[in-house]
Amino acid sequence: MNEQKGGIDLSSSVGKTEWINYIHALQNTICVALEKADGNATFTEDVWTRPEGGGGITRMIRHGSVFEKGGVNTSVVYGEVTSAMRSQLKNISLSNEPLTWWACGISLVLHPVNPFVPAVHCNYRMFELYKNENGIQNSPTGHKEIIDQWFGGGTDLTPYYLFDDDARHFHQAYKNVCDQYDPAIYYQFKEGCDNYFVNTHRNNERRGIGGIFYDYLRPDNARDVNYYMNLGQACGNAFLDSYLPIVERRKNMPFSPENKYWQEIRRGRYVEFNLIHDRGTLFGLKTGGRTESILMSLPPFVRFDYDYQPGKGSEEDKLLQVCLHPKSWV
Amino acid sequence: MNEQKGGIDLSSSVGKTEWINYIHALQNTICVALEKADGNATFTEDVWTRPEGGGGITRMIRHGSVFEKGGVNTSVVYGEVTSAMRSQLKNISLSNEPLTWWACGISLVLHPVNPFVPAVHCNYRMFELYKNENGIQNSPTGHKEIIDQWFGGGTDLTPYYLFDDDARHFHQAYKNVCDQYDPAIYYQFKEGCDNYFVNTHRNNERRGIGGIFYDYLRPDNARDVNYYMNLGQACGNAFLDSYLPIVERRKNMPFSPENKYWQEIRRGRYVEFNLIHDRGTLFGLKTGGRTESILMSLPPFVRFDYDYQPGKGSEEDKLLQVCLHPKSWV
Repeated sequence: MNEQKGGIDLSSSVGKTEWINYIHALQNTICVALEKADGNATFTEDVWTRPEGGGGITRMIRHGSVFEKGGVNTSVVYGEVTSAMRSQLKNISLSNEPLTWWACGISLVLHPVNPFVPAVHCNYRMFELYKNENGIQNSPTGHKEIIDQWFGGGTDLTPYYLFDDDARHFHQAYKNVCDQYDPAIYYQFKEGCDNYFVNTHRNNERRGIGGIFYDYLRPDNARDVNYYMNLGQACGNAFLDSYLPIVERRKNMPFSPENKYWQEIRRGRYVEFNLIHDRGTLFGLKTGGRTESILMSLPPFVRFDYDYQPGKGSEEDKLLQVCLHPKSWV
Repeated sequence: MNEQKGGIDLSSSVGKTEWINYIHALQNTICVALEKADGNATFTEDVWTRPEGGGGITRMIRHGSVFEKGGVNTSVVYGEVTSAMRSQLKNISLSNEPLTWWACGISLVLHPVNPFVPAVHCNYRMFELYKNENGIQNSPTGHKEIIDQWFGGGTDLTPYYLFDDDARHFHQAYKNVCDQYDPAIYYQFKEGCDNYFVNTHRNNERRGIGGIFYDYLRPDNARDVNYYMNLGQACGNAFLDSYLPIVERRKNMPFSPENKYWQEIRRGRYVEFNLIHDRGTLFGLKTGGRTESILMSLPPFVRFDYDYQPGKGSEEDKLLQVCLHPKSWV
């Protein structure tokens, strides 16, 4: 079953089914645990189909005791490579022949009520490109000639106030996972994260304190599809342990209107990053993705003040400085 | 003084000085009138310089009785055409030789407190490109060989509730101005506006009820620099009469928390348009413009709900329908 052609595993239809099953199971596990952590709100579910192929399961939690707004979404989508997609995939070298694509992933964003609880985002996905031989309209998992295939993913933390313990705990959780695969990759993925979530229009201010981020990881003879699927699954499985202990430590901390104000200002930067710079958001919006599912990432309530500057040396400034100058946490 | 070369007026250094003086005078006139309409808040001023050339005057009004947040900004900026600019100016055919540019404009955005008062935006600008012969570092208004030159501008209204009287009054004000130049251009500019302020990712929902918008209007033998400067000035001068009567009619109308909620939802769409689609915003942010001055356009307080839908036939839906299906007002 393991035919190889140009270093690409043609048997990945098996991998795809496993990946689809995994992301749906992870969605369930995470939603159950988050509802328990919230103690009040539950997820609502929208199952949607995409006219051009595939669909998704969008689960939203709102007005919770802990989570003001959050989404845990999965999708399995496919179709023809359109000209809009070609211009969004400009870093991929694409032949001019007709191509089809397939993608499957989980995407999660949580915006907590309490400004001492950080917001968090995670996303793990698999992407394939095929020659458009027979079409794939009726066969989301069928056997086709793959011409490109890659994995992407990451989890990043967006605190509004800096607690070194929380930052170390979060980064350590992902270092533990990555080290099982290759002791170098945590540092590569951590740097990838610091270089990705950047508001270049604000002196390269990061949206938070990072985590891990990787993209366009392609199977080869040394590291096959299974390697990258296992890595993605291990990172996905680490999410709850990386985040929930922080939630538990902070969710009952008293906060002032000034703390909430600062959270709303920082959420503005979150909006700026997602709408101006985030490749995933812009790719989705410009290639006919489901707008409401994509924009679930936006915080519920946001403040845009002109030239807001926290006082020098304040707790707010401490957070800002670490966003401007990312540091090593583990 | 009116040398012509390839249809381009080389004497425009005179035009530039006149244009600069005009936009600064308009900024003053508008700020005085808006302070009077507000009756409470006054504008604060930040004068800034741009390391690469030029600078601007940013004037902000905040926490007013009428205006929750607003900016009336001018800038006169110039420099070398960078590779970032080339990729943002992809609709302009640019030679590979070194080029310099110059731009001057006024940009205004007002976000009122009362959801029955519409938000408004206007922008009038002049842009020139030169061969990089002697550099223009020390000569923002000097005489250089112009290789391209264009005018852009527009004023558009973003109500949260639809009052036909207000929409007609606003559009009529700009039709009156345009008709003095050419009876065809109001309709062209109105269509340009309906086609520009579009959230393509939301079924082509417009951000408001439009107005006028034009861009890349180039002087030629039939319509010279003076024609376009006069047109821009006439439109700029029409702003107060197009908008203030609407403010006066609506600013004391009682409103409910539900009305404010809807305003905050619609402001989310305003943010989406400005950060995802607006050429001016993205051009500025990606070519080293002053971030705080550019992002003054963002509303003060914004709500992003998952899949918010107004009730069918409600006043909120009436507004939404006219954003989805622009209509003729005059």
